[in-house]
Parts: sequence; structure tokens; C-alpha cells
Amino acid sequence: MYKDEEGATVLYFKDDMTGKDGVFDPGENQVGLTVEGSGIVGLEMTTYFFEKLNAAGIPTHFISSVVDNRLMKVKKVSVFGKGLEVICRFKAVGSFYRRYGAYVKEGESLPAYVEVTLKDDERQDPVINKSALDALNILDTESYDEISALTVRISQLIKDELSKKGLDLYDIKLEFGRDEETGEILLIDEISGGNMRVYKDGNYIEPLKLNEYFFDK
Amino acid sequence: MYKDEEGATVLYFKDDMTGKDGVFDPGENQVGLTVEGSGIVGLEMTTYFFEKLNAAGIPTHFISSVVDNRLMKVKKVSVFGKGLEVICRFKAVGSFYRRYGAYVKEGESLPAYVEVTLKDDERQDPVINKSALDALNILDTESYDEISALTVRISQLIKDELSKKGLDLYDIKLEFGRDEETGEILLIDEISGGNMRVYKDGNYIEPLKLNEYFFDK
Repeated sequence: MYKDEEGATVLYFKDDMTGKDGVFDPGENQVGLTVEGSGIVGLEMTTYFFEKLNAAGIPTHFISSVVDNRLMKVKKVSVFGKGLEVICRFKAVGSFYRRYGAYVKEGESLPAYVEVTLKDDERQDPVINKSALDALNILDTESYDEISALTVRISQLIKDELSKKGLDLYDIKLEFGRDEETGEILLIDEISGGNMRVYKDGNYIEPLKLNEYFFDK
Repeated sequence: MYKDEEGATVLYFKDDMTGKDGVFDPGENQVGLTVEGSGIVGLEMTTYFFEKLNAAGIPTHFISSVVDNRLMKVKKVSVFGKGLEVICRFKAVGSFYRRYGAYVKEGESLPAYVEVTLKDDERQDPVINKSALDALNILDTESYDEISALTVRISQLIKDELSKKGLDLYDIKLEFGRDEETGEILLIDEISGGNMRVYKDGNYIEPLKLNEYFFDK
């Protein structure tokens, strides 16, 4: 992250991916592996989705990007606490299934279920509910409701985009921040294969393969 | 648990306590140790609190008890899913602190914070939020709000009772069910030292010692 000549914030997309012990996992926070070209692939997808979202009137931090240079110009934002992840689930898989497997079959449909986790590797990104976020002064209940509603809208839009390509979105991980100038809540970070679990006819689609369904090479 | 001659449900208080490897822990679900007389001590305290709660107009399953015979007559109820635990926290200790220690000091005050866990030993009683309880058809959002409000009222009443004896309630674990006849949501289970963390001048009070502050021997 750096500033351009006009003082705007610019993000540089590296080739790092989240995971553990060299295996990609969207549920992980830490860098687990480096794949050459993954930065460009991530920015290409991110640009595609952010432009769709901005066009739909959803507030995001995205201003513009130059994919080949791996650069994305964004609004300056503050995160909530030390950072939150907001997950929207359409299928019961991953940590949701591990927690609630007594009540749900793996892969069962969920109605755009939203949950929030703290970005805290040391404590394995614990799930946190609305009243705890409020009690700990991380996020007030009004902002929680706003983020929760935005998450459903954004996730549904992305699900629909994937659906047009014959792809199923199982779950997606979003991040939000507050515009430092206007105070508005914005979708931040990136939105690419690395943030979601996507399937086609029941088969998992690797994050870096997602672009092939959207862009000609 | 058995039925008396009139078909009422009667609970028998055994000498088992929750814990692990012979050490008492109110956060555990399983029987961890057996202490002679703990059944009577638990029922004595439970009777005291349930009578106070019934008098305050809070709906509970308690009808009557005969402490020396270890018997408590209760209304017939169904639990939600395979059983929920509803925790009210006035201090950040235990699993709350383990999860959210990045944002709170151990022992810091919390504003009667309510959270729900699933009774599921195999999955270490996972925390679950309002929308997941609804999505999994365990508890609808209206009943969640009712239980949450009842939990704050009940916990505050018990906190006040303890406070009169110079004792501080750090957290308490409650259970609720639905009256099989009327459909009303009722406080169920027992309420004794084993369900709460109580301190006096910063020192932890053992569950079985709690009775000494309330009853002459």
C-alpha cells in the first residue's frame, strides 16, 4: 500500500494467497503460499466485481485499477477494531458445518446466512455476535445491521454473476471499513476466487481457475 | 426424572457435578465428579432462586420441592433443538475472554451480555448467533429476543440477591424450554452455585460454599 502523487491510496497486488502449509484455504488469514501471477488474476476478478457493485450503487472503496501493473486505487478507510471478516453462507460447509454439524448436513442450503469473525490468528478468528461487537465497542448495532444488509446484497449480486456462468457460490468472505472522509461504510479489500468457495456441478473450482469463466485469455 | 402419582414430572437431584477430570467447571457439560451432598445443596439453592423468580412473575418450570428428599416437581417442557445454554456475562472471564482477549482485559465489566451455546460435547458447545439459530430451525428470532430479555431480567435478579450477601456474579448459565401445555417459554433446569461464577472481594467462591451465605446450618 502506498500513496500516489495526488495522495490517493494505491494497493499493490502481490502473488501471496491465504492458506496453511502451502495449501490454499479461503478460511485462513495468513499467507500460506505464493503462486506466480495470482496477484494479477486476483486484481482482474476484483476489478470486475467492484465495477459491477459500484454500478449497482453499492458503496465500495474501489476507485480504479490498472490490472497489468497490479495497482488498485482506493478510498482511504478505517477498519472496525483490528479488522472483521463478514461471511455470507449459502451452503453449510467449512467452519459452519464443523460447529453446527449436529443440526445440519454438509452442503445443505442456507438462506444467505451472515456471520462475523474477528481477524485474530492467535485466537483462530473467533465468531462474534452483534451484542458482543457492541459491548466491546468494535461495531455499534446500527452499523452491524447496515453491514449485514450490505453483505446479503453484495453476496447475492456475486452469486447471480457466478450463476450466469453456471457456477454455484457456497460462501464468501467480505471486509468492510469506514470512509475516513465521509464516514460511510464501504466494502473494502479484494473480491476474487480467494474470498469464496465456488462449485460447478458439485466440483470445487480452484480460486485461480475462476477467471477462466469470466475472461478470455 | 420420573412421574408422581398425579403424572407431574419430578426431578431427583443426584450428587454429580459438571467438570472434567475430577475438577469442577461450570463451563463443562459432562459429569466430572461426584460430591456427597451436592445434590441437596444444589436443590436448596435452586429452590431459593426459583421461588424468588416465580414471585417476581418470571415464568419457570418450578412447581415445588422437598429439599431433604432431593425432589423437585416441575412443569413438563420441551427444549429447543438438542438443548441450548444461555449465558449472561457481567465480567469478561472464561471462554469469552479466551475468544475476545484481543479487545478486553480479563475481568473487565460487561453490560449483562447474553450469548447462546449449543449443548454439544462433541463440538465443545459452540457459540451460535440469533440468525444461525433461526436458519437451523432451532429457535425463531422472536423467541430468541424473548429468551434474551428474560435472561437479562433473571440474571440481574440473581446478581442483586448475591449482592445483598456481599457477593459478585461474574457470569451465569441458564436453560430454557417451552411449556408443553401452554407453549410458554420457561426457565428450566436448576440454578445453584454450579451454574455461575461468584466472587467475594476478588476471591472465587466454590459452588458448594455459596449456600453458606444464604442458609444457616
